[in-house]
Amino acid sequence: MIELDFNNILYNVLGPSHSIGEPELNNAIKDNARICREIQDERKQGRHAFLDLPYQDVAGIISFARANAKKYENIVVLGIGGSALGARTLLEALKPPFYNLLSAKQRKGFPRLFILDNIDSAETKALLQVINPKKTLFNVVSKSGETTETIASLLVTLGVLKKQVGKNYRKNLVITTDKEKGFLRRFADKEGVQSFETQKEVQGRYAVLSSVGLLPAALIGIDIRKLLKGAAAVDNMVKTSGPQINPAYISALVNFIYDREKSKNILVVMPYSAQLKAFAEWFRQIYPESLAKRYDWDNKEVYVGPTVMNALGATDQHSQIQLYNEGPNNKLIVFVEVETTKDKLIMPKLDDESSSFLAGRSLHELMLIEKKATAYALVQSRRPNYTIRLKEISEESIGALLYFFQLVTAYAGKLYKVNPYNQPGVEAGKRATFGLMGKKGYEKEVADITNAISKDKRWIIKI
Amino acid sequence: MIELDFNNILYNVLGPSHSIGEPELNNAIKDNARICREIQDERKQGRHAFLDLPYQDVAGIISFARANAKKYENIVVLGIGGSALGARTLLEALKPPFYNLLSAKQRKGFPRLFILDNIDSAETKALLQVINPKKTLFNVVSKSGETTETIASLLVTLGVLKKQVGKNYRKNLVITTDKEKGFLRRFADKEGVQSFETQKEVQGRYAVLSSVGLLPAALIGIDIRKLLKGAAAVDNMVKTSGPQINPAYISALVNFIYDREKSKNILVVMPYSAQLKAFAEWFRQIYPESLAKRYDWDNKEVYVGPTVMNALGATDQHSQIQLYNEGPNNKLIVFVEVETTKDKLIMPKLDDESSSFLAGRSLHELMLIEKKATAYALVQSRRPNYTIRLKEISEESIGALLYFFQLVTAYAGKLYKVNPYNQPGVEAGKRATFGLMGKKGYEKEVADITNAISKDKRWIIKI
Repeated sequence: MIELDFNNILYNVLGPSHSIGEPELNNAIKDNARICREIQDERKQGRHAFLDLPYQDVAGIISFARANAKKYENIVVLGIGGSALGARTLLEALKPPFYNLLSAKQRKGFPRLFILDNIDSAETKALLQVINPKKTLFNVVSKSGETTETIASLLVTLGVLKKQVGKNYRKNLVITTDKEKGFLRRFADKEGVQSFETQKEVQGRYAVLSSVGLLPAALIGIDIRKLLKGAAAVDNMVKTSGPQINPAYISALVNFIYDREKSKNILVVMPYSAQLKAFAEWFRQIYPESLAKRYDWDNKEVYVGPTVMNALGATDQHSQIQLYNEGPNNKLIVFVEVETTKDKLIMPKLDDESSSFLAGRSLHELMLIEKKATAYALVQSRRPNYTIRLKEISEESIGALLYFFQLVTAYAGKLYKVNPYNQPGVEAGKRATFGLMGKKGYEKEVADITNAISKDKRWIIKI
Repeated sequence: MIELDFNNILYNVLGPSHSIGEPELNNAIKDNARICREIQDERKQGRHAFLDLPYQDVAGIISFARANAKKYENIVVLGIGGSALGARTLLEALKPPFYNLLSAKQRKGFPRLFILDNIDSAETKALLQVINPKKTLFNVVSKSGETTETIASLLVTLGVLKKQVGKNYRKNLVITTDKEKGFLRRFADKEGVQSFETQKEVQGRYAVLSSVGLLPAALIGIDIRKLLKGAAAVDNMVKTSGPQINPAYISALVNFIYDREKSKNILVVMPYSAQLKAFAEWFRQIYPESLAKRYDWDNKEVYVGPTVMNALGATDQHSQIQLYNEGPNNKLIVFVEVETTKDKLIMPKLDDESSSFLAGRSLHELMLIEKKATAYALVQSRRPNYTIRLKEISEESIGALLYFFQLVTAYAGKLYKVNPYNQPGVEAGKRATFGLMGKKGYEKEVADITNAISKDKRWIIKI
């Protein structure tokens, strides 16, 4: 289903300086092998909760989706960060490109899916005009139930719904939030709005295979049992095989060694598939937000963590490869490629030398060759890279891919010695927003901000 | 129209270590001031050709657009890199979000605009099904006229057009390419397909304000004269004012100092506007591709260049800020904010404490406050950042913004001592693609690739 090819990081391919020698890699695999056991042991104590998501009961989600999906023209997810990125990843990977432009018939009666993950006025207004709110189910998603941006989007949406739908507006809402607490839970209970519970122990950015990602997926006809089946296959492989052939462990280890020992503090994830563009953005959240930490688990100040960039092949060969090949050698590039596609397009012959080498070949073949050529050019410039290869894009393989990278993140947490399930560095900004918006109890923040921020006119330059 | 606020990089705001002191900045501004004159002097000798684009004759583009735009339901740009990013930036900034989902009436009769900038089979096939090729004008864009991916997309499109439109298929094509040479020029001449010329001296990534970006923009009703007027205003300001108040020069200098002297080798550009998401992707190409170079202009091996990441506020506060605040202090963050919007959305009051601080406030106010709060939190973590502030989004301000950042790139070229108008690091990959596709004359590449690439099974791990 998935294979990882690490050849292009090795000494005998890359030469000295930017490579990992085989003995070095074998030793590192041996030396850190205990973390594979640790993760599985801690799992039994209820940590790493995302690991058990493949085995959850999804009957409730499926029956809700069956009963409701085809009643609506549109699903709109109101959510931000982990509440949005998972749903977008599943939409882009598993529904046809330009899905929201297809007719209802082409969509087999399933609704369109929009993800509103910002508080942008122009975007919000345009969306509420493009859809008919009466024929839309708004899935409001926030684990805490207190996310400012999501509440803001909900408030604006409520204004429109009450005006256009009237008393029955509650039927156009479904909430995904904590079982017991938070604004969204109180709102759902008080208003009698249908709701789903988030799994308490599963953090937002690990939530794609929980109710957070699965509900919108099921509503557009994605087979969520198959997603979980793919994830379970990875879990099973990892549990039953040794560290030497545990690809998630080795992947985390290689990333870590390059960051900490080989001055490659930027990790590029570059799928060669338009359908995996959102996947790369999802990874750009989960990996650095889990690992970039001021304090390690011994409370030592460390300021560690990889910076992740997302890129897209073949497109970004024309925007990023000059940098990757000739800029500072500070990146490890992770390619994702897809071996086969059902969408075969053949290039016809034209009477011209410049194009004749393309004649009769498929677009997909060209895509795979461009990836191979790019990896080769990087090797020539001694830029380390490795490849994750999917046989095909399917519910199983995408479930596996997402679970795989969550697991890589958990292993990397062990290697960086940080808690991959918190995000203390976003609190200051949240408190400052509350202060500046005049929320009660945040008066001190306003004074701090006024003192800290300079508006020295000499350094404000106008055109 | 635009202002730059550099306060959050200064010593008296950030404290020691990660800041620039005022004397240091003033000295740097003085010491490098000659590059402002150099650019203007070299301009007279025909270098930095993009600088003169505001004064080009666009009557031909405008009359073509007037005569043709409303004949079509769709414009599809076939192009990649600089041939795509500019058009997408203009589309997203200056047309309403979800533009392609609007009805013809809502679009005021102007066509939809799709940009096919990849050779992805699923995406290409889906696009050719979503649009009616008969009612579509395909704008095939490549400066060299030899871009493999663009020729590939054209070939597939031609197959569909000949089948569905028949003999008149040429009317569904308009080509933008070099005046004299390349496959696309030969194709246009031989087939009698209408065409526009690219400006010879203007490189692809600087082409947004040339025929490359302006033709698709004009076809969807963007006032391209106003774009150029905005660009001219920046040119005029820069030409007539000293280095001390030249914001493009100071911006380049600050970026450079942080990269080379303060270990901030990652430049983050983070607009707080959904309409500027594509702009950030455009910048992610032009800046590193222009500046990341193995050799400087004295042919010394340097491997310099900034890595640019794009991010989007407020969304990416939930995916990037943990990294920016608590990860390694290796980034300079450039915010772009928009002061006013015509899309005012007010949040209604609900009977709940958690949301009451939002009641009666506008979504745009919340957006601006979140940006301010994020900048403040970064300052608290001693992370340097500065802000580019647009009064509003309009043709003039977007023309100004794009011209501004091209100019910043040209100044930065001087500071890094590199040629910002070439991209030698992408050649190896292109040649390897030709070799692997079996193009004549590239047999040597195939042997080289076979020798270089290892397929050692021990390092290919399967799930």
